[in-house]
Amino acid sequence: MGEDGKSTGGKYVEPGGDFNRDQNYITTRITVDGRDGYPVEPGRYRLAVSRACPWANRLIIVRRLLGLEDAISMAVAGPTHDARSWTFDLDPDGRDPVLGIERLQEAYFARYPDYPRGITVPAIVDVPTGQVVTNDYAQMSLDLSTEWTAYHRAGAPQLYPEHLRAEIDKVNAVVFADVNNGVYRCGFAGSQAAYDKAYHRLFDRLDWLGERLTGQRYLVGDTITEADVRLFTTLVRFDPVYHGHFKCNRQKLSEMPVLWAYARDLFQTPGLGDTIDFDHIKRHYYEVHRDINPAGVVPLGPDLSNWLTPHDRDTLGGRPFGDGTPPAPHTPLP
Amino acid sequence: MGEDGKSTGGKYVEPGGDFNRDQNYITTRITVDGRDGYPVEPGRYRLAVSRACPWANRLIIVRRLLGLEDAISMAVAGPTHDARSWTFDLDPDGRDPVLGIERLQEAYFARYPDYPRGITVPAIVDVPTGQVVTNDYAQMSLDLSTEWTAYHRAGAPQLYPEHLRAEIDKVNAVVFADVNNGVYRCGFAGSQAAYDKAYHRLFDRLDWLGERLTGQRYLVGDTITEADVRLFTTLVRFDPVYHGHFKCNRQKLSEMPVLWAYARDLFQTPGLGDTIDFDHIKRHYYEVHRDINPAGVVPLGPDLSNWLTPHDRDTLGGRPFGDGTPPAPHTPLP
Repeated sequence: MGEDGKSTGGKYVEPGGDFNRDQNYITTRITVDGRDGYPVEPGRYRLAVSRACPWANRLIIVRRLLGLEDAISMAVAGPTHDARSWTFDLDPDGRDPVLGIERLQEAYFARYPDYPRGITVPAIVDVPTGQVVTNDYAQMSLDLSTEWTAYHRAGAPQLYPEHLRAEIDKVNAVVFADVNNGVYRCGFAGSQAAYDKAYHRLFDRLDWLGERLTGQRYLVGDTITEADVRLFTTLVRFDPVYHGHFKCNRQKLSEMPVLWAYARDLFQTPGLGDTIDFDHIKRHYYEVHRDINPAGVVPLGPDLSNWLTPHDRDTLGGRPFGDGTPPAPHTPLP
Repeated sequence: MGEDGKSTGGKYVEPGGDFNRDQNYITTRITVDGRDGYPVEPGRYRLAVSRACPWANRLIIVRRLLGLEDAISMAVAGPTHDARSWTFDLDPDGRDPVLGIERLQEAYFARYPDYPRGITVPAIVDVPTGQVVTNDYAQMSLDLSTEWTAYHRAGAPQLYPEHLRAEIDKVNAVVFADVNNGVYRCGFAGSQAAYDKAYHRLFDRLDWLGERLTGQRYLVGDTITEADVRLFTTLVRFDPVYHGHFKCNRQKLSEMPVLWAYARDLFQTPGLGDTIDFDHIKRHYYEVHRDINPAGVVPLGPDLSNWLTPHDRDTLGGRPFGDGTPPAPHTPLP
């Protein structure tokens, strides 16, 4: 998310208190029936992301696994931003070539001139009007699975299969509260007590996940689902960022054998690891969060070559893509 | 050191620049011949330390290994301090019971009313006058070995044996520049370039040390010397503090097998590990350095139980105390 769910003021820590993520999003949905005014229509929408952001990373992965690259184009913001949030500074003239804007906030203001909350990624923009449609990242990735089926590639996996939805929703809820958002609650804690609470909640949940994944290859069922995508984008950031920057330091991920093998297995699966840009990830957190890293220095470590070591998770069985197939080999993003 | 060698202003990072340690100390020496006005005399001096501080930790170790506890008493400051530096807030009434002062700076001002530099530990105070004698920590620990020999315990080890002094001095010089002070140069770097340089210098030197220690148990000769004491007090702080707080994060110490086994070997040797207070160590760095950790939150990790695991370094031979003996079992400090 841009601004990690906080208002765009460059301040992340609320002294003395807990970190509370603003969970009010623009909940307009793009659906087959177009009931919110935005029907599924290939070529009409542009997904705005940053490769640094774990919430946007989910959408990059899901879009790629489902083969929606031709149906939904992608605008990639740079890894760092100022108080006015994400900018398209990776593009040669600092403007997204399709939307023609320099800052993502222009798409938000095009729809809501006084938009008061954080300018976040991922967001989907309606190209003809230049207006943001939604930044409700959780619903957004489910909708790629369920509303855009007509445009999925041949062999697209079932990331949110009907018979597993209740279980996926249940796992996603606790993983969000304790892990995806839990690392932020550690890092942005405004008091020792708030940090201590978040830390225990995070590691208790990681222990629980490690036990769950000891005997099964994936979180729900025997194939990769939305639940794995959501846990993966947090785990992949754990050692390069959350361990030090957010003080999530009981162990490194690489010191938790089951979760570490699980994460490597996903990393080495086409469509997941090939979306990861560790440089963008590190620069984003360390350069943007000046109230927890005032000098903005980005650590050179850790050594990340270990992500490509054997994981042996295939001995647990499971079929990464079920009856589907892996996505085509990676071409450079976007 | 108090204030880690900086002037007492609560500011550690010089934006845009390198960290430069103020290496001007009070170089008065306590000697057998008393040529600086301070002769060796048991019961006359008080060593002021903090158990948090790596430079003071050296003196705590050396005093204990040599059995100088009865000859030189010890004042222990609390782990945290404000801009006016170290205080005796661990003592019941907030006053050192022997010196009768609340703040170490009183002993500095007693000798130099306008003392302009950092109020640092370790320092030795002349009890009759209440004046600081020296805070020149490097010379101070050598002098405990060479000037106080008449008061060493029976079986005290040779920490600075004459025939090894040239080699010990050589090792100490590079370990100081690249490791002891190198971690601070990483953490207090005011620019990315300054950090990058310090990081490479640190890890290159740690690699060099790891190679040196692959085939030999101790740094110089086959017994524990001053060189090991000086490296140890930095290594023991590596994972709890320097890895995250100072961004020394290529690996954790526990991921560098030779240095990790070497450090555990020393930790498990009487007189070294029993001087370590991880709680004081963590609280000092994370609570005091507000310009690199503004909220002052102290991480709960890492898990430190691994310090007591077997190290197998004894297979390399070596005799920890040479012809001497271990110090008596630890009694609570001071």
